Amino acid sequence: MTSERDKLGLIGFGAFGRLTARHLSPWFDILAHDPAAMPGVGGGEGVATLTDLATAAACSTVVLAVPVEALEATLIAIRPHLSPEALVIDVGSVKVKPAQAMDALLPPGVRIVGTHPLFGPQSGKDGIAGLRIAVCEVRGAKDAHRVAAFCRRALRLKVFQVSPEDHDREAATVQGLTHLIARVLMAMEPLPTRMTTASFDRLMQAVDMVRHDSPAVFRAIERDNPFAAEVRERFFALADQARGTAGEG
Amino acid sequence: MTSERDKLGLIGFGAFGRLTARHLSPWFDILAHDPAAMPGVGGGEGVATLTDLATAAACSTVVLAVPVEALEATLIAIRPHLSPEALVIDVGSVKVKPAQAMDALLPPGVRIVGTHPLFGPQSGKDGIAGLRIAVCEVRGAKDAHRVAAFCRRALRLKVFQVSPEDHDREAATVQGLTHLIARVLMAMEPLPTRMTTASFDRLMQAVDMVRHDSPAVFRAIERDNPFAAEVRERFFALADQARGTAGEG
Repeated sequence: MTSERDKLGLIGFGAFGRLTARHLSPWFDILAHDPAAMPGVGGGEGVATLTDLATAAACSTVVLAVPVEALEATLIAIRPHLSPEALVIDVGSVKVKPAQAMDALLPPGVRIVGTHPLFGPQSGKDGIAGLRIAVCEVRGAKDAHRVAAFCRRALRLKVFQVSPEDHDREAATVQGLTHLIARVLMAMEPLPTRMTTASFDRLMQAVDMVRHDSPAVFRAIERDNPFAAEVRERFFALADQARGTAGEG
Repeated sequence: MTSERDKLGLIGFGAFGRLTARHLSPWFDILAHDPAAMPGVGGGEGVATLTDLATAAACSTVVLAVPVEALEATLIAIRPHLSPEALVIDVGSVKVKPAQAMDALLPPGVRIVGTHPLFGPQSGKDGIAGLRIAVCEVRGAKDAHRVAAFCRRALRLKVFQVSPEDHDREAATVQGLTHLIARVLMAMEPLPTRMTTASFDRLMQAVDMVRHDSPAVFRAIERDNPFAAEVRERFFALADQARGTAGEG
């Protein structure tokens, strides 16, 4: 590769990794690694070059697009290959645990920013401009601001700079409720598609946006968000109340 | 009034009655009656003339835009004033009970069609073309076809001609689930409005479409649809399953 553009290492080339590569490839040469993809045999879909872990991890910027549950193992695997002042960015659906893990496991000189793009392959399929991303400072305030500015200006995202705790508290409700409701509605399928109302159509659109999320995304939202259990219990308590009063007056 | 257009009696001039008048006024002179509105003192919003019950009920076509729970009393009240071959149409959210009540309580010569416009003041606020309506034959197949054709051609609605039973079975799911979920989400408010996802935004749009529905609409959907209890129990049983497995694998 003879480009003089910055190289970006992308660890994880699943559905979200590919979406990331597609939107970052105008600005970076992307060297992607995924254990499930063979290096050097194509498969980068024109937006990334597939390579080995060491090469991807040695880039000046490294984006971790792996399931939250695989983050620790990934950090341990890339650690020996990181350049001394690398910028490492994760994209997990929760932020408290990943921020702690990255801070605990990455060498002192490495800069760390947590992000949570509030969209996925489904909601981002017609473009991501105007969609939302949370950016959390983990190690290096300047780096968090730089990443936020890039997301705002280059990617045209709506950026929320928040602490990992504030993120997880809000995401527990937003994502926790969406996935809980989607899970129950999917279990009720087949559902009517004929005499539907506009509000029912909206519900089903919400379900369709998360129906293809990987089980790992569901698990991250339900297990790895410290506020998830609380939201879930509140939903069920209120559902029980509705159950008790439905059919009365 | 010197118009030669057909007169349509509209019993009930609440939020849905007004929506009805707005869309039917290009084709009919609408004489509306609502116990909460004073006859002859304006208030018809330029789309109807407010009048007494007897005058409204004497029109050749009578539309009943009253809560399902008030239908029987309304039928008994209008019965003495109906013309012998009047066409009576209801617009309730359930169809089995209203169809039975209308057939049982209205004089033999009167023709009866049940309808359920699958929209409301919220979802219909930017126009109703393309929205859905269910049309049920109750007494007189020809009349049901005529009403269906009018809805299709004049109002540009998507028309579903179904039996009251088929309607209620499907509506129990469509409306039952929407209102159940909306009720629980509203009880959880205030909900996040900042770092939301597209799927969460859809959920909240669904809630916003039914949040101003009258308590009577909720009651009709939950109590007067013979299939509602079954759908509700299935939702809660599956929610309990989700509750049991959430946070596990």
